[in-house]
Amino acid sequence: MPELRFNVVTREWVIIATERAKRPKDFSNNKERSHHPERLPSCPFCPGNEHKTPAERFRVPDGDAWKIRVVANKFPALSPEGEKKRLGNGLRTAVTGVGVHEVIIETPVHNRYTALQDVADIEDLIRVYMARFVEANRDPRVEHAIIFKNHGEGAGTSLDHPHSQLIATPVVPVQFRDRVQAAMHYFDNTGECLVCSLLEKDMQDGTRIIYDTPHFLTFIPYAALSPFHTWIFPKRHSASFSTLTGEESRDLAAHLKNILSRFHYGLSDPDYNYVIRSSRPRDAGNEYCHWYMSIIPRLTTAAGFEMGSGMFINTSLPERNAEFLRSVRPE
Amino acid sequence: MPELRFNVVTREWVIIATERAKRPKDFSNNKERSHHPERLPSCPFCPGNEHKTPAERFRVPDGDAWKIRVVANKFPALSPEGEKKRLGNGLRTAVTGVGVHEVIIETPVHNRYTALQDVADIEDLIRVYMARFVEANRDPRVEHAIIFKNHGEGAGTSLDHPHSQLIATPVVPVQFRDRVQAAMHYFDNTGECLVCSLLEKDMQDGTRIIYDTPHFLTFIPYAALSPFHTWIFPKRHSASFSTLTGEESRDLAAHLKNILSRFHYGLSDPDYNYVIRSSRPRDAGNEYCHWYMSIIPRLTTAAGFEMGSGMFINTSLPERNAEFLRSVRPE
Repeated sequence: MPELRFNVVTREWVIIATERAKRPKDFSNNKERSHHPERLPSCPFCPGNEHKTPAERFRVPDGDAWKIRVVANKFPALSPEGEKKRLGNGLRTAVTGVGVHEVIIETPVHNRYTALQDVADIEDLIRVYMARFVEANRDPRVEHAIIFKNHGEGAGTSLDHPHSQLIATPVVPVQFRDRVQAAMHYFDNTGECLVCSLLEKDMQDGTRIIYDTPHFLTFIPYAALSPFHTWIFPKRHSASFSTLTGEESRDLAAHLKNILSRFHYGLSDPDYNYVIRSSRPRDAGNEYCHWYMSIIPRLTTAAGFEMGSGMFINTSLPERNAEFLRSVRPE
Repeated sequence: MPELRFNVVTREWVIIATERAKRPKDFSNNKERSHHPERLPSCPFCPGNEHKTPAERFRVPDGDAWKIRVVANKFPALSPEGEKKRLGNGLRTAVTGVGVHEVIIETPVHNRYTALQDVADIEDLIRVYMARFVEANRDPRVEHAIIFKNHGEGAGTSLDHPHSQLIATPVVPVQFRDRVQAAMHYFDNTGECLVCSLLEKDMQDGTRIIYDTPHFLTFIPYAALSPFHTWIFPKRHSASFSTLTGEESRDLAAHLKNILSRFHYGLSDPDYNYVIRSSRPRDAGNEYCHWYMSIIPRLTTAAGFEMGSGMFINTSLPERNAEFLRSVRPE
């Protein structure tokens, strides 16, 4: 019999469709990226083409060259210039589209996907994420910032060169507000942070854990919205990603390398998105918000049911998928 | 300058990314379905293959043959048998996966997509939707029912033969609850239904209207989440689709035909989803819920930003897209 599970963090019901359940291997989804070159002359993110990107805002140098570059998005979703203004209210609520939209070019090597990078390189990347996150949040027009990565066309990018993005918006997403409110109710009822409670429960349970270290836990949530949907939870309570210590950054890099290489070798380099869900640095001390990372391989297509209900149908078993990922031996 | 618009019904912020805005024609997305045959021997929904589907639950007869068939889904997301039981609470909330999952085969003709059907045929389809919606809601285990259609692979279906689905769940989707609550607050503040107010505003405005008749309005919402995202609003206030009169059914069929054929000819038969968002028949008298249809061409891919924030980036202008659709002459 299928089972509906409730994701207490995202507040979404998931139908775990056991009758339709596929084996973990059936999700393997090779995108044929293995033939990509180390350098592609037409790629604007490859070395030698620095002039093809907008002005550089930040770099991790490597002698005269660079290891990581941060540039403005050439086609920004939000304008860096201009005043934040309400343009309407009520039935026509609008705000001027000001904010930050940056691209983080993760490596000079065109085909060195995050899964294949060294942990030390990913640690550098995480430090760049932090620096840009803090910087974006200094802009008084900014109310919320998202760091995310789109890997592959199915995840919404047309550029294969490894890159991430930061978008900082002049409003707070309602989804974020709703989740904060639910976490606040949980805190009022129990005196505890919802994510801290869930972390404790999942560590005791153990069936969906993929990687466990002193500072982080990588696991498939009980009510995973889609096959191999994975969370990385920091064990230390903090509302904001900006409070990461040096030791924690190294540990987070190891977790990201771990899960992405399991995807790469176990599921044949699937398209995926990841996102850092965090409060602003100024809200870091909040007791009921807890930042985390979500990693979503794009192995299925949301259809009318998902769009019409906000519920999901997951045609796989979170426990079985976690077991499978644990068995993957990154080459 | 880009603009953020707030969708008051879905409670989602949309970045209308004017800097990236495409022309309406650029979204044209031909799926090469035009070569499909009238009958495909391997298709389980084609006449002659009735034995390949689970038992028929309903039909609109056509002599000895049929015009519309309703069958159980062969791989149901929810089980028709079994008791509804809570399996856990708190951090491990779950419910047995019982409910209804039906397939509505819209026509015996394999390649007669809804856009190409006669209004009278679509009217029959809407009456079947109503009958099955009412029937599903009679099941005491059911708390919510969704009728939806996935047209094309990009919209989540692998079967081309025109069909819709009904899924009735043993829980209320949280997304639905949240929207009801927002509509309730609006009602408390104003004494009016949010959708009725919006309808009035959009009829006065006029810039995003595609089709207007005595009973319905088809228009692109002010804060359309994605290019050509379209709503059909009934003008008479009712919380439930089940209250549709005969005259209204005919009018709704004309609206559906109108918008889908504009998509078909104007955007080269794109993949799309549509969904009927409705309260249960027993809640039909509610003053602040208002049922409607949402039609979503799948012309873009949600990426990390959308997943991580619940906000959307729409690379087109709702007003310009509505103007374009109005100019399409269905052949």
